[in-house]
Order: sequence, then C-alpha cells, then structure tokens
Amino acid sequence: MKQLLIASTSTIYGSSYLEYLQPTLEVFFKNANTILFIPYARPGGISHDDYTAKAEKAFAKINKNVQGIHKCDNPAHAIKNAEAIFVGGGNTFVLVNTLYQNKLMEVLKSKIENGTPYLGTSAGSNITGVSMQTTNDMPIAYPPSFQTLGCIPFNINAHYLDPDIHSKHKGETRETRIKEFHTYHDVPVIGLREGSWLAVKNEDIILKGELSVRFFQKDKEPTELPPNTNFNNFN
Amino acid sequence: MKQLLIASTSTIYGSSYLEYLQPTLEVFFKNANTILFIPYARPGGISHDDYTAKAEKAFAKINKNVQGIHKCDNPAHAIKNAEAIFVGGGNTFVLVNTLYQNKLMEVLKSKIENGTPYLGTSAGSNITGVSMQTTNDMPIAYPPSFQTLGCIPFNINAHYLDPDIHSKHKGETRETRIKEFHTYHDVPVIGLREGSWLAVKNEDIILKGELSVRFFQKDKEPTELPPNTNFNNFN
Repeated sequence: MKQLLIASTSTIYGSSYLEYLQPTLEVFFKNANTILFIPYARPGGISHDDYTAKAEKAFAKINKNVQGIHKCDNPAHAIKNAEAIFVGGGNTFVLVNTLYQNKLMEVLKSKIENGTPYLGTSAGSNITGVSMQTTNDMPIAYPPSFQTLGCIPFNINAHYLDPDIHSKHKGETRETRIKEFHTYHDVPVIGLREGSWLAVKNEDIILKGELSVRFFQKDKEPTELPPNTNFNNFN
Repeated sequence: MKQLLIASTSTIYGSSYLEYLQPTLEVFFKNANTILFIPYARPGGISHDDYTAKAEKAFAKINKNVQGIHKCDNPAHAIKNAEAIFVGGGNTFVLVNTLYQNKLMEVLKSKIENGTPYLGTSAGSNITGVSMQTTNDMPIAYPPSFQTLGCIPFNINAHYLDPDIHSKHKGETRETRIKEFHTYHDVPVIGLREGSWLAVKNEDIILKGELSVRFFQKDKEPTELPPNTNFNNFN
C-alpha cells in the first residue's frame, strides 16, 4: 500500500520547522521508530549534518529518531531497510543530481511503492512527480535526467504563488511558467500553496490543508480545486 | 572589438517592447540595416513567427529590418553573415537547448568575439554569462549542457528582485538562491534589476540605467554597485 505525504513547504509563516504538520505526522509515522532522512537538497547550502540536526529536533517532538542517509555506508541498503523516509526541501537540482549519482532513484521508487511511508517537503515533494521540470529552483547542479520518482501521475509546483496584480515586475509569473511547461509536456501540474499537502494512499491523492490548489492541464484554463479533492479522478 | 548590450528585461513597466532602450539601440545598431533575431526562447510558448513579428515592430521604429533565424535554411550561416544580432527573452532552458541542438553556441560566441553587435534581453542576456545556472526559469527543456557563451566572466541573474520584507512566503528569495549557487560555483553573479543593462566594449563591462545592481561573490556579502560601475575591475 503506497502512502505518501507531499507537502508544499516544511514551514509555514509564523511557526517552526514541520510544526503545522505535526499532528498529521504522528498518525502517518505511527508504526515507525526511526525515520531515514535524506538531506541531499541542502537548503541555503547548509551541510548534511546541520540539516539532519534540524530534522532530528522536529521529530524529537513526536518521539521519533532520525537517521541521516549521508552517515550510512551503503545508502541504497539504508533505503531498503528504512521504516519510514523523509526527503527535505532545498534545491531540487542538487537533490535529483545526488540521488542519481548515488544510484538511489529506482531504489527509492520501489521502496515507496512497496508501502514504506514517505514524507516530502518542497524539493522532496517535487521529486514524487513525473519530472522535476516544474521546480522553482536554480539549476546549480546538472542532473543526468530531469525524470523523477513518478509516484503520482502529475508534476508538483511547490510553494505555488499567485500572480501579484499590483506588481510592476515584468518577470514571468508562476502561472506563465507552468503554461510554458505545457507547450512541451502533457503532464498536469498541481500548484500546491504553502500549507497544503497531498495525502497519497494507493491510487487516492487527496488534497489536505485549508487552501485550494491551482491545477494546470495542457490546453485548458487552470482551475481552483478545494480541499479533499481526489486527484485520482483527473488521471 | 567585442560589443554587447546585456539587458535585464526587454520591457519595463508602463512602456512598450524595447521602448526604454530605443535611444541606446539607435546608437548601438547604427551601422546595421538588418538585425538577425533569435526567437528560440519563446516567451509564454509563442511561435517563432509571432515572436519575430514583435521584434520587427519594435525595430521598425528605428528603421531596422529584422530577420528571424528560424526562417533561414542554414542558421549557422545566418549568424556568420549577420550585421547585428538580437536574442530575445523567454525560457533560458529552451533557448540554450535549441542553440545546442542547432550547433550554434560556438558560432555565436565567435561571431560576437569578432565584433558583431549583440543585444540580449532576459534569457538572451543570461546566455552571455559563463553558465545559465542563475536563471529564474523552469527547466522545461533539458539542454546537453548548462555552459553558455562566456562573453563576460560573470553570470547574469536577469529580472533581479529584492526580497519582499513583508512577505509571508517561505519559498527561497532570489538572494538565497544565488547564495546556494555559490555553494558549488565560483563565478560572480550580477543581479540585474529591470531597467538596468550592461554595455560591453572589449573588456569594459559598464552598468547602465538608473539603478544599482546587486553583486554576488562567493564567500562575500553581496554588495550594491552604482551605475557606471565597470565590472572589469572585479575580474
């Protein structure tokens, strides 16, 4: 039974790291004592150790241990034996590149498909989609491919932002960028606002949190879909 | 004699396409009758024809003809014979990918280094740097390399945006993203605000327009540099 939480962000304004997800995580990870943390995305360029310490602090509040994968001699083996997995945010190019370099993409995909609970935030959510091609991040690393886990038949745009109608800035809006993506690709894109997450159980992909999502399909006008939408209906 | 104009944006708020640059372009292109336009970046996914028509309309105001490279049987030949070149904005991944697919990156670089006037806006400016790794665009195409023309020993961040201190959004600011770039790379980054451009003559790289730039160097605090700064001094 596939089970994932795919969150737009680790942190919402005015609260601490993973705080808004804490009640959800207590239930989601109830059968796990130790969570394997994959810190490869390195937000702000921080070290794997510092990033893992941050995750440890948050999970201590719900009495979970955290093991950083970078400390494991054999990361593929660590994934295969994990009780639960958390991939944190940061730079999606760096994350995907490191997963490919360490030959972990397929291992991680098959582990998730076999039912191990997976939490992703931000970059860790982007990689659950078909490709990382709707990330907001800068291409500071060059991965061998933009294909990602494909645990859901969609792409994620994390930290989705509505156009600022008062802005004088002429750079592309997020919506324009996603429409450009659909010039070349068919995969629908879920624009997940901060505070929203997808709860995946097998084929069900349910929108959680209080906000609607912006849903983009090729050659269609984008639509707003409310909490508890099941995206399996759009597959 | 190398001569480039490297503009953050084609268009500033409240004016038409290229309008704010018109007096500068009249002087810059004074010896050219026809400008070769490279529309490969396809902003918003528009066609090469439509994009070229937009450039034609702007350049008609200063009595220049525009030739779209996509209409040329042999694009490498078209570059070699051009009197002047303009590469417009859009998606930098699409632009770089198409330049590589058509084997034009080296041809374009050597044409510029031989003195043909080159105008870039946005994505067309990003490619004048060492790499496209400080673009803001989504990776909707997969180029064979992120290396670009290297006409200047810097990277460009076009449409540079200051952090919004009132924002509740937790996605990375532009500054955070550029600092992440410097975790892995040494190339200094010029954060060009809309309305700013660099005028390159041989080794001189002069900031033009009314705004300062934000200048990022590895392991240093970013600094603000005023108009008429010569970046050759930082090389």
